[in-house]
Amino acid sequence: MDLLSFLNTKRTIVEEGLRSLSISFAPPPGPLKEAMEYSLFSKGKRIRPILALLANEAGGGEDHGVLPFACALEMIHAYSLIHDDLPSMDNDDLRRGRPTCHKVFGEAIALLAGDALLTEAFRVMTDQEFTGRIDPVVTSRIVFEVAQAAGAKGMVGGQAVDVTYEGKEGSKEIVTYIHENKTTAMIRAAVRVGAIAAQTGERELEQFSRYGEAIGFAFQIKDDLLDVEGDEIEVGKRLKKDAGKQTYVRYYGVDGSKAKIDELIRHAVKSMAFLGPKGTVLVELAHFLGERSF
Amino acid sequence: MDLLSFLNTKRTIVEEGLRSLSISFAPPPGPLKEAMEYSLFSKGKRIRPILALLANEAGGGEDHGVLPFACALEMIHAYSLIHDDLPSMDNDDLRRGRPTCHKVFGEAIALLAGDALLTEAFRVMTDQEFTGRIDPVVTSRIVFEVAQAAGAKGMVGGQAVDVTYEGKEGSKEIVTYIHENKTTAMIRAAVRVGAIAAQTGERELEQFSRYGEAIGFAFQIKDDLLDVEGDEIEVGKRLKKDAGKQTYVRYYGVDGSKAKIDELIRHAVKSMAFLGPKGTVLVELAHFLGERSF
Repeated sequence: MDLLSFLNTKRTIVEEGLRSLSISFAPPPGPLKEAMEYSLFSKGKRIRPILALLANEAGGGEDHGVLPFACALEMIHAYSLIHDDLPSMDNDDLRRGRPTCHKVFGEAIALLAGDALLTEAFRVMTDQEFTGRIDPVVTSRIVFEVAQAAGAKGMVGGQAVDVTYEGKEGSKEIVTYIHENKTTAMIRAAVRVGAIAAQTGERELEQFSRYGEAIGFAFQIKDDLLDVEGDEIEVGKRLKKDAGKQTYVRYYGVDGSKAKIDELIRHAVKSMAFLGPKGTVLVELAHFLGERSF
Repeated sequence: MDLLSFLNTKRTIVEEGLRSLSISFAPPPGPLKEAMEYSLFSKGKRIRPILALLANEAGGGEDHGVLPFACALEMIHAYSLIHDDLPSMDNDDLRRGRPTCHKVFGEAIALLAGDALLTEAFRVMTDQEFTGRIDPVVTSRIVFEVAQAAGAKGMVGGQAVDVTYEGKEGSKEIVTYIHENKTTAMIRAAVRVGAIAAQTGERELEQFSRYGEAIGFAFQIKDDLLDVEGDEIEVGKRLKKDAGKQTYVRYYGVDGSKAKIDELIRHAVKSMAFLGPKGTVLVELAHFLGERSF
Protein backbone atom coordinates (compact mmCIF):
# COMPACT_ATOMS: atom_id res chain seq x y z
CA MET A 1 0.00 0.00 0.00
CA ASP A 2 1.34 3.49 -0.79
CA LEU A 3 1.66 6.08 1.95
CA LEU A 4 -1.36 8.17 0.95
CA SER A 5 -3.69 5.16 0.98
CA PHE A 6 -2.21 4.10 4.29
CA LEU A 7 -2.75 7.58 5.77
CA ASN A 8 -6.31 7.49 4.48
CA THR A 9 -7.04 4.27 6.36
CA LYS A 10 -5.67 5.92 9.46
CA ARG A 11 -7.72 9.02 8.81
CA THR A 12 -10.83 6.90 8.57
CA ILE A 13 -10.04 5.38 11.95
CA VAL A 14 -9.66 8.87 13.41
CA GLU A 15 -12.87 10.13 11.78
CA GLU A 16 -14.79 7.16 13.18
CA GLY A 17 -13.23 7.72 16.58
CA LEU A 18 -14.26 11.36 16.52
CA ARG A 19 -17.81 10.44 15.43
CA SER A 20 -18.27 8.03 18.27
CA LEU A 21 -16.80 10.50 20.77
CA SER A 22 -18.94 13.35 19.53
CA ILE A 23 -22.07 11.46 20.51
CA SER A 24 -20.95 12.14 24.04
CA PHE A 25 -20.92 15.92 23.50
CA ALA A 26 -24.07 17.04 25.22
CA PRO A 27 -26.94 18.26 23.12
CA PRO A 28 -28.11 21.40 24.92
CA PRO A 29 -30.90 23.31 23.22
CA GLY A 30 -29.21 25.45 20.60
CA PRO A 31 -26.32 25.39 18.14
CA LEU A 32 -23.27 24.61 20.36
CA LYS A 33 -22.88 20.96 19.45
CA GLU A 34 -23.53 21.73 15.79
CA ALA A 35 -20.79 24.36 15.81
CA MET A 36 -18.37 21.95 17.53
CA GLU A 37 -19.06 19.27 14.93
CA TYR A 38 -18.99 21.71 12.03
CA SER A 39 -15.38 22.51 12.87
CA LEU A 40 -14.34 19.08 14.01
CA PHE A 41 -15.64 17.34 10.89
CA SER A 42 -14.29 19.68 8.27
CA LYS A 43 -11.73 18.28 5.88
CA GLY A 44 -8.63 18.26 8.06
CA LYS A 45 -5.40 16.40 7.43
CA ARG A 46 -5.78 14.81 10.91
CA ILE A 47 -2.03 14.88 11.11
CA ARG A 48 -1.84 15.08 14.91
CA PRO A 49 -4.05 12.09 15.70
CA ILE A 50 -2.46 10.09 12.88
CA LEU A 51 0.97 10.81 14.34
CA ALA A 52 -0.21 9.57 17.72
CA LEU A 53 -1.51 6.34 16.16
CA LEU A 54 1.67 5.78 14.14
CA ALA A 55 4.03 6.52 17.02
CA ASN A 56 1.95 4.23 19.17
CA GLU A 57 2.23 1.38 16.67
CA ALA A 58 5.93 1.99 16.10
CA GLY A 59 6.43 1.98 19.87
CA GLY A 60 4.60 -1.34 20.15
CA GLY A 61 1.22 -0.13 21.39
CA GLU A 62 -2.26 -0.92 20.17
CA ASP A 63 -4.28 1.41 18.04
CA HIS A 64 -7.53 1.28 19.89
CA GLY A 65 -5.99 2.07 23.25
CA VAL A 66 -4.56 5.36 22.06
CA LEU A 67 -7.46 6.41 19.82
CA PRO A 68 -9.38 8.55 22.35
CA PHE A 69 -6.16 10.45 23.16
CA ALA A 70 -5.47 10.87 19.43
CA CYS A 71 -8.98 12.21 18.93
CA ALA A 72 -8.54 14.59 21.85
CA LEU A 73 -5.50 16.06 20.07
CA GLU A 74 -7.65 16.75 17.02
CA MET A 75 -10.36 18.33 19.17
CA ILE A 76 -7.76 20.70 20.61
CA HIS A 77 -6.49 21.46 17.12
CA ALA A 78 -10.05 22.21 15.97
CA TYR A 79 -10.60 24.56 18.93
CA SER A 80 -7.36 26.40 18.18
CA LEU A 81 -8.43 26.99 14.57
CA ILE A 82 -11.85 28.32 15.61
CA HIS A 83 -10.33 30.83 18.02
CA ASP A 84 -7.54 31.68 15.59
CA ASP A 85 -10.06 32.57 12.88
CA LEU A 86 -12.10 34.94 15.09
CA PRO A 87 -12.25 38.60 14.06
CA SER A 88 -10.15 39.68 17.06
CA MET A 89 -7.44 37.22 15.99
CA ASP A 90 -6.72 36.45 12.31
CA ASN A 91 -10.22 37.39 11.13
CA ASP A 92 -10.40 34.61 8.55
CA ASP A 93 -13.58 33.79 6.70
CA LEU A 94 -12.37 30.64 4.96
CA ARG A 95 -10.96 27.47 6.53
CA ARG A 96 -10.54 24.03 4.98
CA GLY A 97 -12.47 25.29 1.98
CA ARG A 98 -15.55 26.35 3.97
CA PRO A 99 -16.76 29.46 5.80
CA THR A 100 -15.16 29.68 9.26
CA CYS A 101 -17.14 28.73 12.36
CA HIS A 102 -17.99 32.30 13.41
CA LYS A 103 -19.18 33.09 9.88
CA VAL A 104 -21.75 30.33 10.19
CA PHE A 105 -22.68 30.40 13.89
CA GLY A 106 -21.72 33.91 15.02
CA GLU A 107 -18.82 34.95 17.21
CA ALA A 108 -20.28 34.04 20.59
CA ILE A 109 -21.15 30.46 19.66
CA ALA A 110 -17.82 30.04 17.82
CA LEU A 111 -15.93 31.20 20.89
CA LEU A 112 -17.89 28.78 23.08
CA ALA A 113 -17.55 25.92 20.59
CA GLY A 114 -13.78 26.37 20.85
CA ASP A 115 -13.93 26.47 24.64
CA ALA A 116 -16.09 23.35 24.63
CA LEU A 117 -13.84 21.38 22.27
CA LEU A 118 -10.83 22.17 24.43
CA THR A 119 -12.61 21.19 27.62
CA GLU A 120 -14.22 18.08 26.16
CA ALA A 121 -10.79 16.93 24.97
CA PHE A 122 -9.77 16.64 28.61
CA ARG A 123 -13.07 14.98 29.48
CA VAL A 124 -12.62 12.41 26.72
CA MET A 125 -9.08 11.60 27.88
CA THR A 126 -10.29 10.82 31.41
CA ASP A 127 -13.69 9.35 30.59
CA GLN A 128 -13.95 5.75 31.85
CA GLU A 129 -16.12 5.01 28.85
CA PHE A 130 -13.21 5.69 26.51
CA THR A 131 -10.00 5.24 28.47
CA GLY A 132 -11.17 3.09 31.36
CA ARG A 133 -8.76 0.26 30.62
CA ILE A 134 -5.69 2.53 30.35
CA ASP A 135 -3.40 2.62 33.40
CA PRO A 136 -4.35 5.86 35.25
CA VAL A 137 -0.65 6.67 35.59
CA VAL A 138 -0.42 6.73 31.79
CA THR A 139 -3.65 8.72 31.48
CA SER A 140 -2.42 11.33 33.93
CA ARG A 141 0.87 11.63 32.16
CA ILE A 142 -0.79 12.05 28.77
CA VAL A 143 -3.17 14.70 30.08
CA PHE A 144 -0.15 16.55 31.43
CA GLU A 145 1.72 16.27 28.10
CA VAL A 146 -1.24 17.57 26.16
CA ALA A 147 -2.08 20.38 28.57
CA GLN A 148 1.49 21.56 28.70
CA ALA A 149 1.86 21.52 24.91
CA ALA A 150 -1.45 23.32 24.42
CA GLY A 151 -1.02 25.92 27.17
CA ALA A 152 0.95 29.03 28.01
CA LYS A 153 4.26 27.20 27.59
CA GLY A 154 3.12 25.81 24.25
CA MET A 155 0.48 26.54 21.65
CA VAL A 156 -1.33 29.42 23.33
CA GLY A 157 2.01 30.98 24.29
CA GLY A 158 3.08 30.83 20.64
CA GLN A 159 -0.21 32.29 19.50
CA ALA A 160 0.12 35.17 21.94
CA VAL A 161 3.56 36.09 20.64
CA ASP A 162 2.33 35.68 17.06
CA VAL A 163 -0.51 38.15 17.75
CA THR A 164 1.70 40.53 19.71
CA TYR A 165 4.26 40.82 16.92
CA GLU A 166 1.82 41.04 14.04
CA GLY A 167 2.74 44.05 11.90
CA LYS A 168 5.75 44.74 14.10
CA GLU A 169 9.49 44.39 13.78
CA GLY A 170 10.41 40.93 14.97
CA SER A 171 13.54 38.79 14.82
CA LYS A 172 14.78 35.32 14.06
CA GLU A 173 14.46 34.53 17.75
CA ILE A 174 10.83 35.63 17.78
CA VAL A 175 9.84 33.60 14.74
CA THR A 176 11.60 30.58 16.23
CA TYR A 177 9.73 31.05 19.50
CA ILE A 178 6.41 31.30 17.67
CA HIS A 179 7.01 28.24 15.51
CA GLU A 180 8.34 26.13 18.35
CA ASN A 181 5.29 26.86 20.44
CA LYS A 182 2.36 27.61 18.15
CA THR A 183 2.76 24.51 16.00
CA THR A 184 5.69 22.34 17.05
CA ALA A 185 4.62 21.83 20.66
CA MET A 186 1.38 20.04 19.79
CA ILE A 187 2.86 17.97 16.96
CA ARG A 188 5.68 16.90 19.25
CA ALA A 189 3.09 16.11 21.92
CA ALA A 190 1.09 14.01 19.44
CA VAL A 191 4.11 11.81 18.77
CA ARG A 192 4.94 11.64 22.47
CA VAL A 193 1.37 10.74 23.43
CA GLY A 194 1.54 7.77 21.05
CA ALA A 195 4.84 6.65 22.54
CA ILE A 196 3.75 7.22 26.15
CA ALA A 197 0.59 5.19 25.56
CA ALA A 198 2.84 2.42 24.17
CA GLN A 199 4.88 2.71 27.37
CA THR A 200 8.21 2.95 25.56
CA GLY A 201 11.34 3.47 27.59
CA GLU A 202 12.59 6.98 28.33
CA ARG A 203 15.41 6.80 25.76
CA GLU A 204 13.01 5.75 23.02
CA LEU A 205 10.62 8.47 24.09
CA GLU A 206 13.40 10.99 23.69
CA GLN A 207 13.91 9.84 20.08
CA PHE A 208 10.20 10.15 19.38
CA SER A 209 10.34 13.67 20.83
CA ARG A 210 13.15 14.65 18.48
CA TYR A 211 11.21 13.28 15.55
CA GLY A 212 8.07 15.18 16.57
CA GLU A 213 9.98 18.38 17.14
CA ALA A 214 11.67 18.22 13.76
CA ILE A 215 8.56 17.47 11.71
CA GLY A 216 6.54 19.97 13.74
CA PHE A 217 8.94 22.79 12.99
CA ALA A 218 9.19 21.72 9.34
CA PHE A 219 5.40 21.63 9.18
CA GLN A 220 5.10 25.29 10.18
CA ILE A 221 7.87 26.43 7.82
CA LYS A 222 6.03 24.57 5.07
CA ASP A 223 2.88 26.50 6.03
CA ASP A 224 4.83 29.73 5.69
CA LEU A 225 6.07 28.63 2.26
CA LEU A 226 2.59 27.58 1.13
CA ASP A 227 1.30 31.02 2.03
CA VAL A 228 3.77 32.44 -0.48
CA GLU A 229 3.80 29.71 -3.12
CA GLY A 230 0.73 27.53 -2.56
CA ASP A 231 -2.53 27.15 -4.42
CA GLU A 232 -5.49 28.60 -2.50
CA ILE A 233 -7.94 25.87 -3.50
CA GLU A 234 -5.52 23.07 -2.77
CA VAL A 235 -4.53 24.52 0.61
CA GLY A 236 -8.16 25.33 1.47
CA LYS A 237 -7.63 28.72 3.13
CA ARG A 238 -6.82 32.26 2.09
CA LEU A 239 -3.14 32.65 1.24
CA LYS A 240 -0.80 35.61 0.85
CA LYS A 241 -2.08 36.69 4.26
CA ASP A 242 1.15 36.49 6.21
CA ALA A 243 2.59 39.85 5.09
CA GLY A 244 2.56 41.34 8.59
CA LYS A 245 3.31 38.03 10.32
CA GLN A 246 6.51 36.65 11.75
CA THR A 247 7.24 33.92 9.20
CA TYR A 248 10.31 31.85 8.54
CA VAL A 249 10.30 33.02 4.92
CA ARG A 250 10.49 36.64 6.08
CA TYR A 251 13.74 36.10 7.96
CA TYR A 252 15.33 33.26 5.97
CA GLY A 253 13.89 33.68 2.47
CA VAL A 254 12.27 30.98 0.33
CA ASP A 255 15.53 29.12 -0.30
CA GLY A 256 16.63 29.31 3.31
CA SER A 257 13.25 27.99 4.41
CA LYS A 258 13.39 25.07 1.99
CA ALA A 259 16.91 24.22 3.12
CA LYS A 260 15.74 24.29 6.75
CA ILE A 261 12.85 21.94 5.98
CA ASP A 262 15.26 19.50 4.33
CA GLU A 263 17.56 19.65 7.32
CA LEU A 264 14.72 19.06 9.74
CA ILE A 265 13.32 16.13 7.77
CA ARG A 266 16.79 14.54 7.69
CA HIS A 267 16.98 15.01 11.44
CA ALA A 268 13.53 13.47 11.89
CA VAL A 269 14.45 10.49 9.76
CA LYS A 270 17.65 9.93 11.70
CA SER A 271 15.76 10.01 15.00
CA MET A 272 13.68 7.05 13.86
CA ALA A 273 16.67 4.91 12.79
CA PHE A 274 16.62 3.00 16.07
CA LEU A 275 13.23 1.53 15.15
CA GLY A 276 14.52 -0.25 12.05
CA PRO A 277 11.71 -1.40 9.72
CA LYS A 278 9.10 -0.52 12.35
CA GLY A 279 9.94 3.12 11.71
CA THR A 280 9.34 3.01 7.95
CA VAL A 281 5.95 4.72 7.96
CA LEU A 282 7.12 7.52 10.23
CA VAL A 283 10.12 8.05 7.96
CA GLU A 284 7.91 8.14 4.86
CA LEU A 285 5.51 10.48 6.61
CA ALA A 286 8.35 12.87 7.43
CA HIS A 287 9.34 13.04 3.75
CA PHE A 288 5.71 13.47 2.76
CA LEU A 289 5.19 16.38 5.16
CA GLY A 290 8.31 18.09 3.85
CA GLU A 291 7.00 17.85 0.31
CA ARG A 292 3.25 18.44 0.73
CA SER A 293 1.46 21.02 -1.38
CA PHE A 294 -1.64 21.37 0.87
CA MET B 1 -13.64 32.41 64.87
CA ASP B 2 -16.60 33.78 62.92
CA LEU B 3 -17.36 32.50 59.43
CA LEU B 4 -16.04 35.53 57.54
CA SER B 5 -12.66 35.38 59.27
CA PHE B 6 -12.54 31.66 58.70
CA LEU B 7 -13.31 32.10 54.99
CA ASN B 8 -10.61 34.74 54.84
CA THR B 9 -7.99 32.34 56.16
CA LYS B 10 -9.10 29.86 53.50
CA ARG B 11 -8.98 32.55 50.86
CA THR B 12 -5.43 33.36 51.86
CA ILE B 13 -4.49 29.70 51.43
CA VAL B 14 -6.05 29.73 47.95
CA GLU B 15 -4.34 33.01 47.00
CA GLU B 16 -0.98 31.63 48.08
CA GLY B 17 -1.64 28.43 46.17
CA LEU B 18 -2.49 30.40 43.05
CA ARG B 19 0.63 32.55 43.45
CA SER B 20 2.91 29.58 43.66
CA LEU B 21 1.19 27.88 40.72
CA SER B 22 1.34 30.99 38.58
CA ILE B 23 5.12 30.89 38.73
CA SER B 24 4.78 27.83 36.54
CA PHE B 25 2.89 29.73 33.85
CA ALA B 26 5.49 30.26 31.15
CA PRO B 27 6.71 33.76 30.58
CA PRO B 28 6.74 34.11 26.79
CA PRO B 29 7.79 37.52 25.49
CA GLY B 30 4.66 39.64 25.69
CA PRO B 31 1.62 40.22 27.85
CA LEU B 32 -0.01 36.75 28.04
CA LYS B 33 1.13 35.88 31.54
CA GLU B 34 0.34 39.37 32.78
CA ALA B 35 -3.18 39.11 31.38
CA MET B 36 -3.67 35.70 32.99
CA GLU B 37 -2.52 37.01 36.36
CA TYR B 38 -4.50 40.23 36.04
CA SER B 39 -7.68 38.21 35.89
CA LEU B 40 -6.66 35.48 38.28
CA PHE B 41 -5.59 37.86 41.02
CA SER B 42 -8.52 40.24 40.95
CA LYS B 43 -10.68 40.38 44.06
CA GLY B 44 -12.70 37.21 43.72
CA LYS B 45 -14.74 35.52 46.40
CA ARG B 46 -12.78 32.30 45.64
CA ILE B 47 -15.90 30.40 46.46
CA ARG B 48 -15.16 27.37 44.27
CA PRO B 49 -11.69 26.59 45.64
CA ILE B 50 -12.85 27.30 49.18
CA LEU B 51 -15.70 24.85 48.72
CA ALA B 52 -13.23 22.22 47.54
CA LEU B 53 -11.06 22.79 50.62
CA LEU B 54 -14.01 22.71 53.01
CA ALA B 55 -15.59 19.61 51.46
CA ASN B 56 -12.19 17.97 51.56
CA GLU B 57 -11.77 18.71 55.27
CA ALA B 58 -15.31 17.67 56.07
CA GLY B 59 -14.73 14.44 54.15
CA GLY B 60 -11.57 13.76 56.16
CA GLY B 61 -8.95 14.84 53.61
CA GLU B 62 -5.98 17.12 54.00
CA ASP B 63 -5.92 20.67 52.78
CA HIS B 64 -2.61 20.66 50.99
CA GLY B 65 -3.36 17.59 48.92
CA VAL B 66 -6.42 19.15 47.36
CA LEU B 67 -5.07 22.68 46.98
CA PRO B 68 -3.79 22.41 43.37
CA PHE B 69 -7.15 21.01 42.29
CA ALA B 70 -8.91 23.80 44.18
CA CYS B 71 -6.71 26.37 42.46
CA ALA B 72 -7.41 24.80 39.08
CA LEU B 73 -11.13 25.36 39.70
CA GLU B 74 -10.45 29.04 40.25
CA MET B 75 -8.32 29.23 37.10
CA ILE B 76 -11.24 27.81 35.12
CA HIS B 77 -13.58 30.28 36.77
CA ALA B 78 -11.23 33.14 35.85
CA TYR B 79 -11.09 31.96 32.23
CA SER B 80 -14.87 31.79 32.02
CA LEU B 81 -15.18 35.37 33.26
CA ILE B 82 -12.64 36.67 30.73
CA HIS B 83 -14.45 35.04 27.82
CA ASP B 84 -17.86 35.99 29.23
CA ASP B 85 -16.86 39.66 29.32
CA LEU B 86 -15.66 39.78 25.69
CA PRO B 87 -17.49 42.11 23.28
CA SER B 88 -18.98 39.19 21.34
CA MET B 89 -20.39 37.81 24.61
CA ASP B 90 -21.64 40.08 27.43
CA ASN B 91 -19.45 43.03 26.40
CA ASP B 92 -18.68 44.05 29.99
CA ASP B 93 -16.12 46.68 30.83
CA LEU B 94 -16.12 46.25 34.59
CA ARG B 95 -15.42 43.10 36.61
CA ARG B 96 -14.61 42.76 40.28
CA GLY B 97 -14.34 46.55 40.43
CA ARG B 98 -11.70 46.84 37.69
CA PRO B 99 -11.63 47.16 33.89
CA THR B 100 -12.17 43.77 32.25
CA CYS B 101 -9.24 41.86 30.77
CA HIS B 102 -9.88 42.83 27.14
CA LYS B 103 -10.20 46.50 28.14
CA VAL B 104 -6.66 46.37 29.49
CA PHE B 105 -4.93 43.89 27.14
CA GLY B 106 -7.07 43.94 24.00
CA GLU B 107 -9.42 41.27 22.74
CA ALA B 108 -6.87 38.89 21.22
CA ILE B 109 -4.72 38.61 24.34
CA ALA B 110 -7.80 38.37 26.57
CA LEU B 111 -9.14 35.51 24.47
CA LEU B 112 -5.78 33.73 24.67
CA ALA B 113 -5.39 34.44 28.39
CA GLY B 114 -8.71 32.66 28.90
CA ASP B 115 -7.64 29.75 26.70
CA ALA B 116 -4.36 29.53 28.61
CA LEU B 117 -5.98 29.59 32.06
CA LEU B 118 -8.33 26.78 31.07
CA THR B 119 -5.51 24.69 29.62
CA GLU B 120 -3.09 25.39 32.46
CA ALA B 121 -5.76 24.29 34.93
CA PHE B 122 -5.55 20.80 33.44
CA ARG B 123 -1.77 20.99 33.42
CA VAL B 124 -1.67 21.97 37.08
CA MET B 125 -3.97 19.08 38.04
CA THR B 126 -1.66 16.53 36.40
CA ASP B 127 1.69 18.20 37.10
CA GLN B 128 3.89 15.90 39.20
CA GLU B 129 5.28 19.00 40.88
CA PHE B 130 1.89 19.77 42.38
CA THR B 131 -0.11 16.55 42.51
CA GLY B 132 2.66 13.94 42.32
CA ARG B 133 1.74 12.31 45.59
CA ILE B 134 -1.96 11.98 44.76
CA ASP B 135 -3.15 8.56 43.63
CA PRO B 136 -3.36 8.79 39.80
CA VAL B 137 -6.78 7.11 39.94
CA VAL B 138 -7.98 10.04 42.03
CA THR B 139 -6.27 12.57 39.77
CA SER B 140 -7.87 11.10 36.66
CA ARG B 141 -11.25 11.06 38.27
CA ILE B 142 -10.95 14.69 39.37
CA VAL B 143 -9.82 15.81 35.90
CA PHE B 144 -12.89 14.06 34.51
CA GLU B 145 -15.21 15.71 37.05
CA VAL B 146 -13.83 19.14 36.30
CA ALA B 147 -13.78 18.73 32.51
CA GLN B 148 -17.31 17.42 32.46
CA ALA B 149 -18.61 20.23 34.66
CA ALA B 150 -16.77 22.87 32.63
CA GLY B 151 -17.60 21.53 29.16
CA ALA B 152 -20.49 21.16 26.76
CA LYS B 153 -22.57 19.24 29.32
CA GLY B 154 -21.81 21.86 31.95
CA MET B 155 -20.63 25.45 32.12
CA VAL B 156 -20.00 26.09 28.40
CA GLY B 157 -23.28 24.38 27.52
CA GLY B 158 -25.08 26.70 29.92
CA GLN B 159 -23.28 29.74 28.52
CA ALA B 160 -24.25 28.78 24.99
CA VAL B 161 -27.94 28.57 25.88
CA ASP B 162 -27.66 31.82 27.84
CA VAL B 163 -26.22 33.55 24.76
CA THR B 164 -28.68 31.92 22.37
CA TYR B 165 -31.70 33.04 24.36
CA GLU B 166 -30.53 36.56 25.11
CA GLY B 167 -33.25 39.01 24.11
CA LYS B 168 -35.56 36.14 23.19
CA GLU B 169 -38.62 34.51 24.61
CA GLY B 170 -37.46 31.78 26.97
CA SER B 171 -39.15 29.61 29.57
CA LYS B 172 -38.82 28.28 33.07
CA GLU B 173 -37.19 25.18 31.58
CA ILE B 174 -34.63 27.28 29.72
CA VAL B 175 -33.65 29.35 32.75
CA THR B 176 -33.35 26.17 34.80
CA TYR B 177 -31.11 24.62 32.14
CA ILE B 178 -28.91 27.71 32.06
CA HIS B 179 -28.59 27.96 35.84
CA GLU B 180 -27.97 24.24 36.31
CA ASN B 181 -25.17 24.29 33.80
CA LYS B 182 -23.62 27.76 33.67
CA THR B 183 -23.12 28.07 37.42
CA THR B 184 -24.32 25.04 39.33
CA ALA B 185 -22.22 22.45 37.48
CA MET B 186 -18.86 23.96 38.52
CA ILE B 187 -19.93 24.69 42.11
CA ARG B 188 -21.20 21.15 42.45
CA ALA B 189 -17.93 19.92 40.92
CA ALA B 190 -15.93 21.99 43.41
CA VAL B 191 -17.63 20.26 46.33
CA ARG B 192 -17.28 16.87 44.67
CA VAL B 193 -13.59 17.43 43.91
CA GLY B 194 -12.97 18.06 47.59
CA ALA B 195 -14.86 14.92 48.55
CA ILE B 196 -13.24 12.76 45.84
CA ALA B 197 -9.78 13.90 46.95
CA ALA B 198 -10.76 12.89 50.48
CA GLN B 199 -11.79 9.52 49.05
CA THR B 200 -15.17 9.50 50.73
CA GLY B 201 -17.52 6.63 50.02
CA GLU B 202 -20.02 6.86 47.18
CA ARG B 203 -22.98 7.50 49.47
CA GLU B 204 -21.21 10.38 51.18
CA LEU B 205 -20.17 11.70 47.77
CA GLU B 206 -23.81 11.72 46.72
CA GLN B 207 -24.67 13.88 49.75
CA PHE B 208 -21.85 16.30 48.90
CA SER B 209 -23.22 16.47 45.35
CA ARG B 210 -26.65 17.42 46.61
CA TYR B 211 -25.17 20.09 48.80
CA GLY B 212 -23.13 21.49 45.89
CA GLU B 213 -26.07 21.42 43.55
CA ALA B 214 -28.33 23.24 45.97
CA ILE B 215 -25.89 26.00 46.87
CA GLY B 216 -24.81 26.33 43.23
CA PHE B 217 -28.35 26.92 42.05
CA ALA B 218 -29.03 29.27 44.95
CA PHE B 219 -25.82 31.13 44.11
CA GLN B 220 -27.02 31.93 40.59
CA ILE B 221 -30.51 32.94 41.68
CA LYS B 222 -28.83 35.25 44.19
CA ASP B 223 -26.81 36.71 41.30
CA ASP B 224 -30.05 37.35 39.43
CA LEU B 225 -31.49 39.06 42.52
CA LEU B 226 -28.37 41.16 43.06
CA ASP B 227 -28.63 42.40 39.49
CA VAL B 228 -32.03 43.82 40.39
CA GLU B 229 -31.51 44.83 44.02
CA GLY B 230 -27.75 44.94 44.61
CA ASP B 231 -25.31 47.80 45.09
CA GLU B 232 -22.97 48.19 42.09
CA ILE B 233 -19.91 49.07 44.17
CA GLU B 234 -20.44 46.27 46.65
CA VAL B 235 -21.05 43.69 43.90
CA GLY B 236 -18.12 44.97 41.80
CA LYS B 237 -19.73 44.76 38.37
CA ARG B 238 -22.34 46.62 36.34
CA LEU B 239 -25.85 45.74 37.49
CA LYS B 240 -29.31 46.13 35.94
CA LYS B 241 -27.84 44.44 32.86
CA ASP B 242 -29.94 41.31 32.82
CA ALA B 243 -33.02 42.82 31.15
CA GLY B 244 -32.75 40.63 28.03
CA LYS B 245 -31.39 37.62 29.93
CA GLN B 246 -33.08 34.46 31.09
CA THR B 247 -33.09 35.07 34.84
CA TYR B 248 -34.89 33.37 37.66
CA VAL B 249 -36.38 36.71 38.69
CA ARG B 250 -37.93 37.11 35.24
CA TYR B 251 -39.91 33.90 35.51
CA TYR B 252 -40.48 33.63 39.26
CA GLY B 253 -40.38 37.24 40.48
CA VAL B 254 -38.34 38.64 43.37
CA ASP B 255 -40.39 36.91 46.04
CA GLY B 256 -40.44 33.60 44.20
CA SER B 257 -36.67 33.77 43.77
CA LYS B 258 -36.09 34.48 47.44
CA ALA B 259 -38.36 31.61 48.42
CA LYS B 260 -36.45 29.30 46.07
CA ILE B 261 -33.12 30.33 47.59
CA ASP B 262 -34.46 29.58 51.08
CA GLU B 263 -35.69 26.19 49.93
CA LEU B 264 -32.35 25.34 48.30
CA ILE B 265 -30.35 26.40 51.34
CA ARG B 266 -32.55 24.26 53.56
CA HIS B 267 -31.94 21.37 51.21
CA ALA B 268 -28.18 21.99 51.26
CA VAL B 269 -28.16 22.09 55.05
CA LYS B 270 -30.10 18.85 55.27
CA SER B 271 -27.65 17.13 52.89
CA MET B 272 -24.81 17.83 55.33
CA ALA B 273 -26.65 16.48 58.39
CA PHE B 274 -24.84 13.12 58.11
CA LEU B 275 -21.54 14.87 58.89
CA GLY B 276 -22.64 16.05 62.34
CA PRO B 277 -20.33 18.74 63.80
CA LYS B 278 -17.82 18.20 60.95
CA GLY B 279 -20.39 19.76 58.62
CA THR B 280 -20.83 22.96 60.62
CA VAL B 281 -18.76 25.20 58.36
CA LEU B 282 -20.45 23.96 55.19
CA VAL B 283 -23.83 24.58 56.82
CA GLU B 284 -22.83 28.08 57.86
CA LEU B 285 -21.42 28.74 54.41
CA ALA B 286 -24.71 27.70 52.81
CA HIS B 287 -26.61 30.21 54.95
CA PHE B 288 -23.99 32.86 54.19
CA LEU B 289 -24.28 32.35 50.43
CA GLY B 290 -28.06 32.62 50.61
CA GLU B 291 -27.80 35.94 52.42
CA ARG B 292 -24.79 37.55 50.70
CA SER B 293 -25.05 41.11 49.34
CA PHE B 294 -22.01 40.89 47.01
